Order: sequence, then C-alpha cells, then structure tokens
Amino acid sequence: MDNNKFELLEKIKSPQDLKKLSVDELPSLCEEIRRKLILTVSENGGHLAPNLGVVELTVAMHYVFDCPEDSIVWDVGHQCYTHKMLTGRYDKISSIRRTGGLSGFPRRYESEYDVFGAGHSSTSISAALGIAKAKQLKGDDSHTVAFIGDGSFTGGLAFEGMNNAGRLRRNFIVILNDNKMSISKNVGAMSRHLTSIRVSNWYLNAKVKLERFFNKIPLVGKPFVNFLTTIKNWFKKKVYKTNMFENFGFHYYGPVDGHNLESLISVLKAAKTVNRPVLIHAVTTKGKGYQFAENDPKSFHGIGRFDIDTGEPLSHSDSYSNCFGETLCSLAEKDEKICAITAAMTTGTGLSDFAERFKDRFFDVGIAEEHAVTFGSGLACQGMTPVFAVYSSFLQRAYDQLVHDAAAQKLHLVLGVDRAGIVGEDGETHQGVFDVSILNTIPSTTIYSPCYFDDLKACINQAVNKESALTAVRYPRGSEPYRPDDFTHNGINFSVYGNPNASRLIVTYGRLFSQACKAKEMLSNVGKETCILKLCRIKPIDPEAIRFAACFKKVHFFEEGMRSGGVAETFESELYKERFEGIFSITAIEDMFIPHSKDTEALHALKLDAEGMFDILRK
Amino acid sequence: MDNNKFELLEKIKSPQDLKKLSVDELPSLCEEIRRKLILTVSENGGHLAPNLGVVELTVAMHYVFDCPEDSIVWDVGHQCYTHKMLTGRYDKISSIRRTGGLSGFPRRYESEYDVFGAGHSSTSISAALGIAKAKQLKGDDSHTVAFIGDGSFTGGLAFEGMNNAGRLRRNFIVILNDNKMSISKNVGAMSRHLTSIRVSNWYLNAKVKLERFFNKIPLVGKPFVNFLTTIKNWFKKKVYKTNMFENFGFHYYGPVDGHNLESLISVLKAAKTVNRPVLIHAVTTKGKGYQFAENDPKSFHGIGRFDIDTGEPLSHSDSYSNCFGETLCSLAEKDEKICAITAAMTTGTGLSDFAERFKDRFFDVGIAEEHAVTFGSGLACQGMTPVFAVYSSFLQRAYDQLVHDAAAQKLHLVLGVDRAGIVGEDGETHQGVFDVSILNTIPSTTIYSPCYFDDLKACINQAVNKESALTAVRYPRGSEPYRPDDFTHNGINFSVYGNPNASRLIVTYGRLFSQACKAKEMLSNVGKETCILKLCRIKPIDPEAIRFAACFKKVHFFEEGMRSGGVAETFESELYKERFEGIFSITAIEDMFIPHSKDTEALHALKLDAEGMFDILRK
Repeated sequence: MDNNKFELLEKIKSPQDLKKLSVDELPSLCEEIRRKLILTVSENGGHLAPNLGVVELTVAMHYVFDCPEDSIVWDVGHQCYTHKMLTGRYDKISSIRRTGGLSGFPRRYESEYDVFGAGHSSTSISAALGIAKAKQLKGDDSHTVAFIGDGSFTGGLAFEGMNNAGRLRRNFIVILNDNKMSISKNVGAMSRHLTSIRVSNWYLNAKVKLERFFNKIPLVGKPFVNFLTTIKNWFKKKVYKTNMFENFGFHYYGPVDGHNLESLISVLKAAKTVNRPVLIHAVTTKGKGYQFAENDPKSFHGIGRFDIDTGEPLSHSDSYSNCFGETLCSLAEKDEKICAITAAMTTGTGLSDFAERFKDRFFDVGIAEEHAVTFGSGLACQGMTPVFAVYSSFLQRAYDQLVHDAAAQKLHLVLGVDRAGIVGEDGETHQGVFDVSILNTIPSTTIYSPCYFDDLKACINQAVNKESALTAVRYPRGSEPYRPDDFTHNGINFSVYGNPNASRLIVTYGRLFSQACKAKEMLSNVGKETCILKLCRIKPIDPEAIRFAACFKKVHFFEEGMRSGGVAETFESELYKERFEGIFSITAIEDMFIPHSKDTEALHALKLDAEGMFDILRK
Repeated sequence: MDNNKFELLEKIKSPQDLKKLSVDELPSLCEEIRRKLILTVSENGGHLAPNLGVVELTVAMHYVFDCPEDSIVWDVGHQCYTHKMLTGRYDKISSIRRTGGLSGFPRRYESEYDVFGAGHSSTSISAALGIAKAKQLKGDDSHTVAFIGDGSFTGGLAFEGMNNAGRLRRNFIVILNDNKMSISKNVGAMSRHLTSIRVSNWYLNAKVKLERFFNKIPLVGKPFVNFLTTIKNWFKKKVYKTNMFENFGFHYYGPVDGHNLESLISVLKAAKTVNRPVLIHAVTTKGKGYQFAENDPKSFHGIGRFDIDTGEPLSHSDSYSNCFGETLCSLAEKDEKICAITAAMTTGTGLSDFAERFKDRFFDVGIAEEHAVTFGSGLACQGMTPVFAVYSSFLQRAYDQLVHDAAAQKLHLVLGVDRAGIVGEDGETHQGVFDVSILNTIPSTTIYSPCYFDDLKACINQAVNKESALTAVRYPRGSEPYRPDDFTHNGINFSVYGNPNASRLIVTYGRLFSQACKAKEMLSNVGKETCILKLCRIKPIDPEAIRFAACFKKVHFFEEGMRSGGVAETFESELYKERFEGIFSITAIEDMFIPHSKDTEALHALKLDAEGMFDILRK
C-alpha cells in the first residue's frame, strides 16, 4: 500500500460520489481517510483523536443522508475533517487551520454543507432544532441531524435543546458520539448513565423479549392475574422509558458500534423513517486506527505538529498553562482552602498535577462553565478559595454567573483565564478577545494581565492571597515571549520601562509588552526615544499610572482585545479627566471577528506586533 | 378572626421559636403567614403566587432543619418571603422591596439565613453543591438543601448542577417545588416527565409491589425460567431507575403533597437520613389560599399593588412591553417569516397575543436563554426572522450564544430587550444595566435604544425589516415618559432637540431623553440654554452625531447603564478623534450594583434624572 495514495478519496467531489461506492468499498475509503487525517494533522496540528473516532460515522451519515438538502449540525465541530473531505474540500484539506485555508471547524462561509458553524460546545441540538422548526414552517421535509459527543452532553445547553426537542412531532435525529472520554475524562451522572447503558449491550434485545414475555403471560387462572395486568400496563408505560433520552421524549437506538459501517447504515436508515425525535447512541473509540492516539487520546485531542512514526510532538516548550498549574500547586500545598475547578480542560489548563496531588480539592465539572462559576461561588461562601481555570473564549458562557453569583455577593472566586488574546489556528470562535471587556463591566472585579512567568506567579499569589472579591488573572496561550535583559521591575499594578522623559509613551498590558519592547528598540534605532507603561492590574487601573501617562505628548495604547469596553477606552477617559492635552491613539480589535491563522500573523495584521507599533509610532 | 392579628407569627423571632410549636399548631401559623403575604404584597407589590405556594414547604423545612447551621439555597428567590418571616425578619416584612427595606430576594448581606443570594433562575443546585462540598472538606456534617421550582429546572444550569451532584457520596437534598406552571406555562420534555410522574400517584407503591411480585415468581419448572431470571435482574437494574432524577443518581421521594405538613415533615426527616443525594418532589398549587391568585397564577406571579377584596391591580398603564408585542403582531401579520421566542416570559414581554394569534411561530422555550439564542440562530439560518424577547438582565445568560451562534455567523436574529435600565424594586439582580456594554463588544451588532412608543415601533420595524445581522432593540420597564409638545423629529439614528448654537450639549439615549428635556426646561428657567442630542441607534453611533457634538464647548453624556463599555466612553473616544477641544463629562453607573428602591429614587441617586442633570449642568 502506497501511503500517499488516496484513490477512492480523490474521486469524491461531493457526497453524491460517495453514494456511488458499494458498502464493501467503504472500509477501504475509511482507511484512506484515516491515513489522510493522520498525515494532515501531523503537518498542520489540529484535532486528531476526535476525527479518527468518527470516520465511519461520518461516512455512514453522508451515505444515508442527502446533504446539503438534509442538514448535519456538528457540535464543537473539531471532528468535522472527514465531513470536509467528503463535501468537496478534499483537495484543500492540507490547508486546514492555515491562513486563508480551510477552518478547523464548520464555517457557514466556507461551504453550504456547513449548515451551522461551531467551536464551543453543546450548541448542536438547539441549532438543529431551529433548523428543523424552520423547515417545518416552510413545508420542507428534508432531515436534520445534530451530531454531539458525550462530553458536549454535560453542558446545560444540550439539556435545554433536548428538553425542547422532545416535543417535536416530526423526524429529528440526534447522534450521540459516545467516546467515553470527551476532552478530559468524562464526569458526572450523565457519564455514569451512558456507561450503564453501554454495559447492557442486550438492551434493545431485552425490550423485544420483554414484549414477547408479556404477550405470553396467560392472563387467566392464576392468583395474581389482576395484579399482573396492572403491572403489565405499568411496565409498558414506564419500563419502555428507561433511559434519560427516552424520558426526554426521544426514540432511542443503541448502543451501536460506531465503527461498524453496516450497523451504522442500517440504524441511520431506520432512524430516517421515525416520525419523531430519535437518538442514536453510537459507541466509538477516540483516536481509532492510530495506536498512539488510541492509547493517549487526551494528548491527541488537540495537538501541534508531530512525528507520525513515533507520535512525538515536534516542539516542546514551557507554557503559561504549566506555569499557572505549578504555581497553584505550590500555593495549595500551604493552604488547604485552595480548590481548583476546570470545565473538562484539566490538561489544557495545566491542572493535571493539581488533579493528582489534591484530589479532594480538584473539581472537573464537565463542559459546564456556568456551573463551574456558581459551584465555585458556593465553595467561596463557605470560606474556601476556589480557582476556576478556563479558556477566555469559554468563560464567555458564564458571564451571568460571574455577575449574579460571584460579584454581586462579593465572593472571593479566582479566575485563571487561559488562552487570553489571539490564539491562532483555531480561529474566530476561540480567540480570547472578549474577556477583558466583559469582566470590565462587572462591579468590584479585579483583573490582572501579566506578561512573563514571574509576573504570572506574582499575580496568582496576589489573586489568591491578597484579593477578597472576584479576581481574574489572564494569560496567553503558548510560551514566554522576548524579555529585554534590562527589564527587571515588574510591578503588580504597573511598571515603567524606558526613558520617562521621552515624548512618546506606549501603554499596553499582557504579552504585548514584549512586542512594545521590540518596537522601542526599533524606534531607538531610528533615533526616536519611547517610554513604555506596562499595566499589569488592568481593573481598576492605578490612578498613579494615569497621572504618569498624562505628562506625555503622545500616548499610544495597544490592546490585544476588543476596543469596545477594553482597557484603552477607560484609560483614555481617565486620562482626559487628568487634563491630558496631548494626542491619544488606540490600536485594538475593532468591531470584527479574527479568522484562523498563526497568532503572529494575526497580531501583525492587527498592527499589534512590534512592526505595527513601530509603523504607528514612527509617524 | 381578626385579619390583622398574627399571634403565632409575632412570636417567631428565629426558626428555634418555630420548633416550639406543635405540628397541630402549624396550619394556623400557615394561615397567618398567608394573610400576611397577601396583605404585604397588596401594599408593596412583589411576588405573590409563588410565595403562597410554598408556605407549608417553608414551614416544614425550618421545622425539620436547623438553620443557619443547615443551609437552604433558594432558586430565583422570589418565593422566600415566608423564609424571611421565619428567620427574624417578620417585623420588617412590610418594608420588603422598599428603599432601605428588605429585599424581595435572598441577600447574603441581609441575614445569615440567606446563605446564597438569587434573582436569576437555576443556580440553586450548583451553589448548594459548592456549599456541601466545602462543608465536606471542612468536616462539617450539617445539611444543605437546594430549593428549586419546576420552571427553574428547564434551565441548563440546573442540569449541570444535577449532573455534578449525582456523584456526591453524602447527604444532599434537592426540593423540587412542582407547581405545574412556573412563570408562564411550563414547557418541554421535563414538564411532560413531571406530569407523567404526578399522574402515577401509585409510583412508590408500584415499586414495592414490583419487588414482592419478583419475589413471588416461582423460579422453577416453567419453560421461561432462565429468561425470567435474566429479565428479573435487568428489571432490578433498570426499572428501579425510572425517572430522570434517579438516572442522575438521586434517591427520589415523591410525589408529595406540598400543602400537607405532616407528609412534608416526615419526608424531610427521612431525607435527612439518606447518605446520598435525595430529590423530594413536592406538588404545590401556585397562589394557594388566595382564590384570585389560584385562578390566575400568571397575573399574580409578580404584581404591583392590588385590592385584596377584588384582586384588581391598583394602577393600569400601557407599557413598552405591550407596545412591543402589538408592533410585532402587526409585522407578523404581513410577514410569515417572523417568529417570536420567549424564555418563559410570554406575559412579561407582551407576547400573549402573539402566542395566541401565531401559534406555529411562537416558541416558549422555558427558562433557557442560551437555547433561545442558539435555536433562534438555527431559525435564522433557514431564512426565518426570529425575534427573541427577553429581559435585559436575563439576556446576560446568553452572551456566548450571541457571540458564537448569532453574530459570528452574521445571522439575522432580533432581540427585544425588555426591562433595559433601572427596574426598581426587584433590585441588583434585575437591573438592566449591563446589556449595552456586553452587546457593544459583539462585532457587527446593531443596537437601538428608543425613548417613546412611536420610536420603539420604528426601531422594531427597522430591526426586523431593514437590518440583516444581530440587532437589539432595548426599552425600559413601565410606561411612556414625559414628552415635550414640540419634540417631533424622532430620528432612527439620532435627533437634535433645542438650540444647536447653545454652548452646552446633553447627549443621552433611551428614556433619559425625557429627563434631559425636563432638565433643559429647568436650565432655561435659570437662563441657561441647552441642546440635547438624543441617540437612538447607539451601536454603531452615527458619525454625523459625533461631528454635531464636536462643535459644543461642553458635552455631558448621561447613560442609564454601566460606564465601562457603555456608549459614553465610545462617544468620548470618537469625539476626541474629531478634534473636540471642549469639556466632556460622563454620568453613568460606576463600578457598583444598584440595590432595590423605586426606579425614580435610583435614578435620582445616580444623578440620572432631571434634577441630577440640572445640578451637573448648572455648574
């Protein structure tokens, strides 16, 4: 077998071409797809294990349904690579996650087959229900399918979707991809419930047998005949609804082997004929077909470039996440009140060690950011010090809980906001560019945005040990950036770097300080002296920092976040209150979403890197 | 019986005093409590029907548990009046919802018995779980109870809480107050599920009988013995988990008559002894004991002052909500694509007529704001025009869905943001003061904030028929405010009122324009001429409006919302870009929560009424 030959795959320009294959040819196609997936992700990075797990399911879906008339809505969407290959994008798959290339997630602007975009969890059922309802109103009887993983099912929005979908009186299909893992190890009652269904593989059979059994019971002559009749009816009503999905009003098919094409195709065909909501429970193996990924699906969930033969990542570097996790461990060692909370991101947020070392005080709540914040507020009101580590873009889900449960009650909840700022290849849904603006609106909240690891450690210590209300420490994805040798004073509120008598001042915070330092050097090379005001506590801004800036002739604020509600606008307003008479300018993210590309490229396009700063300040 | 005598109630200074009563005396106490509730709410307004429904439940809880060592967490909290009366606040109950008086919701700052505050829905299980976990870590074995209504159970956060609580290995009690109604009529699978449990009152009995039945089956001599053995075990495993709560890992008690004190006390006592999570399903009648409220619990859910003898409200006035509902109906008549969505607030948002007239296009999704937005986005991507009517403070729950599902995909979802601005007596959890700041952060979003009814109609028409992406129209609670006779030009983007050659300019939007008009008259009386710039489209701000303002010497922006991320800061920043050289000042809500009081009093305290504006501009 030639590892670079994809004979079947190359022929598939649309799902119609897939349908020309016989069922017998499909396993070979799946083999090609897997090879292509491994090859592509090894070169571009991306989500590998989730995609390997759903190859057969995706092939079977496109074999049975007629897209784009029928609609498939992907949950999270990190498992849509096979879908992209089968829907006319095979020839572009090697561009995935690259600037100008395919997105790693479904995107409506990319293809009519991507009927609804994603990136965050638990949206598919609600979105698909909206689509199905609209079709019903329009008299369109094509099918609508929501494809959701067991991890996404731990999010409340999925429940809200199920609760509303259960009353639909037409065909509506939810495919539950149960890989027994989700991102971190799956947790909670839902997970246990799925396990209990899985272990009873004869579930469906039992139902049939039960029916026969009842039909056989002779309803005469026995002393408990009357009772039997009652209980029989009761069984019919109750027993036939023995799992959660059936309680929701769904017709349940499963569990089905998610790697057996024939079973999948026959179940999907059957599901199409049911005139009400159907849930197909498919059991899959995350990372299927690539041994390294099967053995360690967590590491191969989302991954950078790696060596195919060894499964080893091609680059290693220390990350802010690790620094955060280590710092929290060292604080937790000395203080039994410290608890850590994650929403299914133990590894991603650097909490693996904490989880092992402080088992009792570690809480993985599933993909449930709202619960994480309200639960943490509950811990806090009993005197614990909860630290919720969460990606910036996922924190967006808990805005109301931050306002209503944490801040309004002045509870001491600490947020470790990871992936703050531009994240790069995951694109618009994952950019951490909103957290500052929304946290800024919340009364009595303190926000720190450190630049370097020592900085980060100091901020976490401050947040945990010295603050007493809602406090966020936000830090970017990746490793520590450039630091000038002569930058030493790292103030917890702010620091000044450069000549305070220069006429130009750059104000910034977070990792952009590093870019500002480079810009300062570039400007110095063309004879322009610049001073930098590095904010670390960005809410509230230290009035001393404002007063310092008010003396400059030109003040340029660079912000790696949305302009509206960001630090720059507040800084400007405060500055004018200090009778500032110079020129003030803001470079931040204007009213737009940032598509996927390398983070360096995105920052460059936004004029938020050293070159951008140099260009703006040189004028 | 003297209607103003509360002999038992007056003696209760704490739950300890309650415990001194015999069970036989409790019904009389409940009668007194009901009388006091009706009297108080008829005078102060507030939540009547929910409180009447939980009198016995609350009495029973405080009779069985030892608060404040044991913790009761209220969901939403609008049903806590009895709890307040029994926990040392009876003598202050007539001050409820008044400035400086008791809050209408649990508040930690008010009493140690209010262990966790509320106002929004579905938080109690998560918060209580945090409290229970903290107690476990501290070695405190007191009880923790979450009290939640069936309406709150439709919110995803409640599901996330249940999913996490199910694995607890200690006593944890959830009391489900099933009043079959919640705020609007309850919807969805959960509701149907509860109904199915309720109608099978013999549920618990059946379990017992089933057990006996299996024990009686002779396991010998019959041809299907082996099969029976298998199926018996299967039953034991499956049938015994026949409702959703048991699937979550909860021990289920119910349904219990929520007005029968003896049953309640015995079930609560039993629940205390179970060493795992327990759910008590109590069935109650919303509005119990006051005929008008029992007959029309919707109208008596939250109500203003009313006449006790007739049940008639003491004031009637047309509201923005009604104007919104009427406008939407008249648009929907002509356009079959228009759909309306509410999160259990059909009446509150003025959609009752729409619900009746356009049944197919009306969606009450339960208290599920996240789902409402994602579902609406699904409708929109199929070409429908969904309009989600929602209170400003509850929209906070759907921030991520607005970003991720609606805006990022440029879908045409319209938001009718009701109760925008200060809402008055419901206090900090209900103030609609964050919506502008958070909507401002969302790319490609348009926001209108009209002042008058004709204004509102024009904005809704604009949002539905002329905009093509996410568009919010926000309007306050209550009736139309003062309008000067000579104010006619009501521009959809902005309007100018007064002499454009005056040196002072007031900039504002929404109903504050009305206050500004009064301030203008007051200023005119002391010889100061003022011009007013009334913004209506507040995002994006019309550049023409900025240019207009840039010519004034003094510009004062008054904003009924958070300063951070609000319109004023953006306006200021834009103004300086236009080389504005005058003085700019902002009066908005600084970093604080606004407690309950009349809305006029709150606006006065914030200097956002005519007097405040007059004071500031006179200087």
